[in-house]
Amino acid sequence: MGRITTRRPVTTIEIGAPTRRRADTLAVEEPLEIRLAGSPYVVTMRTPGHDLELAAGFLVSEGVVRQQQDVTGSIHCGGPGTSPAGQPNTLNVLDLALAPGITPEPGAARSFYSTSSCGVCGVASLEAVEKMSTFDLAEDDTRITPEQLAAQPDALRARQEAFERTGGLHAAGLFDAATGELLVVREDVGRHNAVDKVVGWALLEGRLPLRGTILQVSGRASFELVQKAAMAGIPVLAAVSAPSSLAVDLAVDRGMTLVGFLRGPRMNVYAGHDRVEQGSTTGGR
Amino acid sequence: MGRITTRRPVTTIEIGAPTRRRADTLAVEEPLEIRLAGSPYVVTMRTPGHDLELAAGFLVSEGVVRQQQDVTGSIHCGGPGTSPAGQPNTLNVLDLALAPGITPEPGAARSFYSTSSCGVCGVASLEAVEKMSTFDLAEDDTRITPEQLAAQPDALRARQEAFERTGGLHAAGLFDAATGELLVVREDVGRHNAVDKVVGWALLEGRLPLRGTILQVSGRASFELVQKAAMAGIPVLAAVSAPSSLAVDLAVDRGMTLVGFLRGPRMNVYAGHDRVEQGSTTGGR
Repeated sequence: MGRITTRRPVTTIEIGAPTRRRADTLAVEEPLEIRLAGSPYVVTMRTPGHDLELAAGFLVSEGVVRQQQDVTGSIHCGGPGTSPAGQPNTLNVLDLALAPGITPEPGAARSFYSTSSCGVCGVASLEAVEKMSTFDLAEDDTRITPEQLAAQPDALRARQEAFERTGGLHAAGLFDAATGELLVVREDVGRHNAVDKVVGWALLEGRLPLRGTILQVSGRASFELVQKAAMAGIPVLAAVSAPSSLAVDLAVDRGMTLVGFLRGPRMNVYAGHDRVEQGSTTGGR
Repeated sequence: MGRITTRRPVTTIEIGAPTRRRADTLAVEEPLEIRLAGSPYVVTMRTPGHDLELAAGFLVSEGVVRQQQDVTGSIHCGGPGTSPAGQPNTLNVLDLALAPGITPEPGAARSFYSTSSCGVCGVASLEAVEKMSTFDLAEDDTRITPEQLAAQPDALRARQEAFERTGGLHAAGLFDAATGELLVVREDVGRHNAVDKVVGWALLEGRLPLRGTILQVSGRASFELVQKAAMAGIPVLAAVSAPSSLAVDLAVDRGMTLVGFLRGPRMNVYAGHDRVEQGSTTGGR
């Protein structure tokens, strides 16, 4: 876990005060090349750690894998040209073995570059942007109270160890709707990576589809985050900040509950508000 | 400019208060397919508006174009399948004409999908992630005072019209280091898009390389933002929030000044601190 943060020298200037030279703790951002059976599939900028989960979750979002058995093995290896003799292995290449018959669509199996804020790449046209989820959210009867939702950001923040030190990491956490339990938390410089790691964790634990769960994210809700949640079968996505128009439209289309601006006792429900039980907020009716 | 924001119904819940149903203003996120001479090049999730600047700036970041004359024409057209007969043109396809001899690298001219938080795609391996800038920043003798830097976030915020209404848009602004003038501001759901629009504006105005300027961004500084600034010849990048480790490393490598956590009178200078004139901060020495 040591590679999640690193230290760099910094000059701290404050107008009217002496300038200081010190060391600052930063979130680590490094490229990860994901290979499938030895063939380059994608390069993503990410915070190291939980790389197998990241790769597995990315493949769920891409519709390549959908259950635990689809990923049969993985190995970290040094990147070509990135580990000159004598230097430690950078662990920035991860090669996955998939079950027989599990292959990405022909057009998607090229290598491309995904930045630390980019998740879903490899689609060839506008029509293909909106992927089809294999799980039906509209039939999911998960219910959650405003009190549960309101407690989530603080619970997530309390587990964001690296953010406290760097201020530079997004987080995603998965809550059990029935018990309120925080099942898993992942951090990354890329918000989509944090979600991929959570989804990949669930795949590797054999928990997909994630019925009865809420995905809580530390920032905004974009189209891609709604799409990733839909591909994992998550019925409720809650964000601390604003959703985009297309995030709302996709959530409505998929029957997902989308909560935004979840701050203190207040929240905006943009889609699927039937899942939010409001009895306790209106005096117990 | 009307399409930058849109309205959607929302249920606002506040624990202990009556639930309200109202309309909320959201930042628009829509796909844009960029074509080069009729061939699909990239699909990016973006906030509509300044699409030509976005496309031009993206091509600068990719190293495809580098001066005004490289882009010879553009036309907005309806996307295939997105404009059924009778519906208004969606304007979500932009076809660019480039000057003779200006072509993307063979491997990059495929179509792929770039999310609203993804900028630089299309690279085939780890070694290619770090593109070479065509402009030499180390020789740029731009100087700026802490007072100038400290004034930038408020100046940028004052021009962020859509953010005030949605809370969901990133902004990028370009300042003249000599005069302090705010030359251009662009907003987008994707922070890399906001920077692409600024760089594209500069290309179309014949202003590249952007010597003597400071790029101010509203969020964090990632690897990709440093890379985009470097490709445009911008010597100073200032961010309101944290930089990543690789953002700092790339800025050091390219001779760029990188400022982070620029809040009120305080700021951290992670690279190129020689450009920040500190005389006034230490009592005039």
